[in-house]
Amino acid sequence: MLNATDLQRLIEIITEEVMSASRRPAPPPSQCACHAVLYECCPDRLRGVLDAGASRIGLHASGGAAGSVAGMIDHTLLKPDATRRDIETLCREAAEFRFATVCVNPTWVALCAALLRGSGVGVCSVVGFPLGATTADVKHYETRRAIFDGASEIDMVINIGALKSGDLPIVERDIQAVVGPCRDANVVSKVIIEAALLTDDEKIAASTLSKAAGADFVKTSTGFASGGATPADVALMRRVVGAEMGVKAAGGVRDYEGLKAMVAAGATRVGASAGVRIVQESKGGPPPSANAPAGY
Amino acid sequence: MLNATDLQRLIEIITEEVMSASRRPAPPPSQCACHAVLYECCPDRLRGVLDAGASRIGLHASGGAAGSVAGMIDHTLLKPDATRRDIETLCREAAEFRFATVCVNPTWVALCAALLRGSGVGVCSVVGFPLGATTADVKHYETRRAIFDGASEIDMVINIGALKSGDLPIVERDIQAVVGPCRDANVVSKVIIEAALLTDDEKIAASTLSKAAGADFVKTSTGFASGGATPADVALMRRVVGAEMGVKAAGGVRDYEGLKAMVAAGATRVGASAGVRIVQESKGGPPPSANAPAGY
Repeated sequence: MLNATDLQRLIEIITEEVMSASRRPAPPPSQCACHAVLYECCPDRLRGVLDAGASRIGLHASGGAAGSVAGMIDHTLLKPDATRRDIETLCREAAEFRFATVCVNPTWVALCAALLRGSGVGVCSVVGFPLGATTADVKHYETRRAIFDGASEIDMVINIGALKSGDLPIVERDIQAVVGPCRDANVVSKVIIEAALLTDDEKIAASTLSKAAGADFVKTSTGFASGGATPADVALMRRVVGAEMGVKAAGGVRDYEGLKAMVAAGATRVGASAGVRIVQESKGGPPPSANAPAGY
Repeated sequence: MLNATDLQRLIEIITEEVMSASRRPAPPPSQCACHAVLYECCPDRLRGVLDAGASRIGLHASGGAAGSVAGMIDHTLLKPDATRRDIETLCREAAEFRFATVCVNPTWVALCAALLRGSGVGVCSVVGFPLGATTADVKHYETRRAIFDGASEIDMVINIGALKSGDLPIVERDIQAVVGPCRDANVVSKVIIEAALLTDDEKIAASTLSKAAGADFVKTSTGFASGGATPADVALMRRVVGAEMGVKAAGGVRDYEGLKAMVAAGATRVGASAGVRIVQESKGGPPPSANAPAGY
């Protein structure tokens, strides 16, 4: 424990250091040749670091690719048999193409957060995934664990069985159990309604409850049900939640045409495992061939 | 708060009541006409109660149908869109046919435990299901929640990605995180290795780690992957774990022939959604037709 004298001395040391730093001349800005941004923020520098096999991308990189096609995409790998190497490739691609996030299962969040720290690419994890049939307190705990591990976004699946049984209070409390800790930690929350299993009335109810619970996004699908996102579902969800919330289309968006259809219907984010191909198509480049490097 | 006098008086009242009860003659045994068992234990009585729509089957029913075909089956409904009514039907069938357990998602455990209390049919829940890609502490918490809600058996999915990455310590700790609380609470633990996604070496490693962790069963599949149980996988798993552990075959066992093939290969439990059909076939009865009552 510090006594009062120690504390006073510590304050003096910190004050001296701050004053001294403010008197020092600022170092000259170090810019990269390719983008004329601060060297630490150059995405190509990140790519170089990753290509060299580093396990940490580097701090102070700039904040994502907002407004671009890549900045709309959650670069997604949720297969249960994805390996550490697959996840590392996902992160490398995400840093290179500047996707909004990588979307991974909870077991990989800590690794992705370490790999992507400072890259401007977020880490999105899933909760109660993909069946949505765990209890609200388990979803709450799973959310807090993912946030602790470094998740900046949480995609949770609603209690589909409760919704189809007409138990709306259970559905609502279940969403609140995830949205609450997300808001506390300034983490983006998305509510997956698994539209393929729902009637239109159920889609409207689920979207309404998501909005009431203060979620940031509604999301169409897990990608594990019989069907994924459709423009009609995106349009319906957008009508229900209005302009203030995000709508994420996921499941089956495999190319740039698919992305554009979802955006035209009202989507503001897309989840896709084909993000690299989509971005390349959006720039007029060829889609990756069968000879593309592993991981593409 | 009770004071010492109140406490003494309470003890006297309880003692008097116990002594008085022990002096009363035992009531005559009340037997049912159909099975000549104690009326409270008659499964047809349970069926009658359930058919009448009761929400509780009744206490003191006898303990399962050990040694029978039904007693080998976990009567399973894990679809995310199963409703309360579907789950009630599942429990009604389980009590009637005396399956080993109903196997349901965590959100339904408390309901099933209430419906089946005293029926001799257990409640089996799933953990980290079906991807196995949550963290060990989340699986631990989910297990304790399911046990608190009334689960008597827990089927957990291993961390498949960690196994395929060669991170065996992670796989082992993950299994231990579930087996530990199960053993503390005298709850049966089963470890789902999701064989369809594994090489034979990986199946052997997963079965070995399950045995080392003190699990009660290894189980082939979730039923949500590309493939379910095969006799070859069951036989391999049986060879690895020896005679002391159970082996549960799940996913794709749709008829009595399928069940017999799994048992011949070494399975001691089968997970199936077609349990009613399997039991009826085993008794030489016709499989339920398309006109069978809803829920069959």
